Amino acid sequence: MFEHNMLVRVYYADTDAFGIVYHANYLRFCEMARTESLRELGIGLPYLMTEYGIQFAVVTVTLTYHKSARLDDQLLIVSTISHIGRASVTYKQDIYLTDRQGDLLCSVEIKLVTVDQNMRPCALPEALKMEIV
Amino acid sequence: MFEHNMLVRVYYADTDAFGIVYHANYLRFCEMARTESLRELGIGLPYLMTEYGIQFAVVTVTLTYHKSARLDDQLLIVSTISHIGRASVTYKQDIYLTDRQGDLLCSVEIKLVTVDQNMRPCALPEALKMEIV
Amino acid sequence: MFEHNMLVRVYYADTDAFGIVYHANYLRFCEMARTESLRELGIGLPYLMTEYGIQFAVVTVTLTYHKSARLDDQLLIVSTISHIGRASVTYKQDIYLTDRQGDLLCSVEIKLVTVDQNMRPCALPEALKMEIV
Amino acid sequence: MFEHNMLVRVYYADTDAFGIVYHANYLRFCEMARTESLRELGIGLPYLMTEYGIQFAVVTVTLTYHKSARLDDQLLIVSTISHIGRASVTYKQDIYLTDRQGDLLCSVEIKLVTVDQNMRPCALPEALKMEIV
Repeated sequence: MFEHNMLVRVYYADTDAFGIVYHANYLRFCEMARTESLRELGIGLPYLMTEYGIQFAVVTVTLTYHKSARLDDQLLIVSTISHIGRASVTYKQDIYLTDRQGDLLCSVEIKLVTVDQNMRPCALPEALKMEIV
Repeated sequence: MFEHNMLVRVYYADTDAFGIVYHANYLRFCEMARTESLRELGIGLPYLMTEYGIQFAVVTVTLTYHKSARLDDQLLIVSTISHIGRASVTYKQDIYLTDRQGDLLCSVEIKLVTVDQNMRPCALPEALKMEIV
Repeated sequence: MFEHNMLVRVYYADTDAFGIVYHANYLRFCEMARTESLRELGIGLPYLMTEYGIQFAVVTVTLTYHKSARLDDQLLIVSTISHIGRASVTYKQDIYLTDRQGDLLCSVEIKLVTVDQNMRPCALPEALKMEIV
Repeated sequence: MFEHNMLVRVYYADTDAFGIVYHANYLRFCEMARTESLRELGIGLPYLMTEYGIQFAVVTVTLTYHKSARLDDQLLIVSTISHIGRASVTYKQDIYLTDRQGDLLCSVEIKLVTVDQNMRPCALPEALKMEIV
């Protein structure tokens, strides 16, 4: 399966009074990386809706924080799809620091289910499955 | 015209690596205060849509920052409507510190226009105007 | 052990284009509830630093999303401490909808470790342990 | 004076239940663009602090919203410095849509003052002034 790499910069907006990236913002970075990984496959978010009538909704998230990122750090987000189910896709996303020694900062596992535009669960279209495998 | 007061606490999520409230978050606090000021008048956001078919969209904002708020500070947001037009409402919102000597932190002026559910400008319903004056 | 309840309102700032609360924002709500649960015990965040020289840093998070919250919904966050270790505190936080039938929206488990002001791990002070048990 | 261009993508995290970019997030986009415009001149944020002992603090903001951006839109942020004072820098930042007809979405004017690490106002160092003019 494919692996997608994305660079993200840490701005003031991402940090907190502790001087580090606020823990919830890693989920925002991960959303950005998943969206770009789909775009690289030719699957934009509007296309998901117009072509397949579906969206992805997050159902479970596991985050493990190893080290902290700071203001102006550059992060590398490595995203892979670890499992594709009948109506779900599970991502493994690791966030590294590019500036110091490439430390692993945060490991994320996110399971998303396919839903229709009324947020009702629906099967992952076979054609879409082909595109993302 | 009425004056609405709302207390808000500063959490890590609101701050940045400078140790202060991130400047954009005052707009978030102001949105909260405007929503609660309407609720106090019996006008919930869903009611605006179901009863009048409108929402408010921000068109201009002026922010002046006087002092900084820090983690765990308690803020007082004082909201007044300074002008009601044919299709707009203008708010004056001042944010004070409650903990130290009541310093004025930030002054905001926000003009909102009434739009329908397709984001098209529309007149402010007379009945609604009555409710908020 | 104690149980802490906190009400939170959903504003535009908390929602996304799907019409629901953006998944990362539940972590923000949980931070607010943990901070208020400590305050109820007389432990403000500045007090943690000045009295004990420590802060809490998030190390692992598990989120399970059951249903979606929408604009203007009122949420109830129920927080309990499920485990206290030598240098860690683990919270269980459940987020319910108060408006409809009290649906469980999201279950969160968060492990925090005590760190000094340089972000180095340190033991949870016994006196503090007494206060939060 | 220089002009800096930056592209930004709109993700779910940036949008609200109205289906558009939440109004406060344009300030976040503008902060990103100012930081990158300084980096292009060789002035990273840590450098500002280590070399000159200063940071920039926002004092006034004026935002005018013309049109709305939506999920997955690509935005172009055009930043110019409109005024440099003894202890301040004023930016003009215009945000355009790249995807449709290049509509102007939002115009921002932001005045920042130079402060030392204790948030006390201080003069803009002459050497730095040379670098950003």
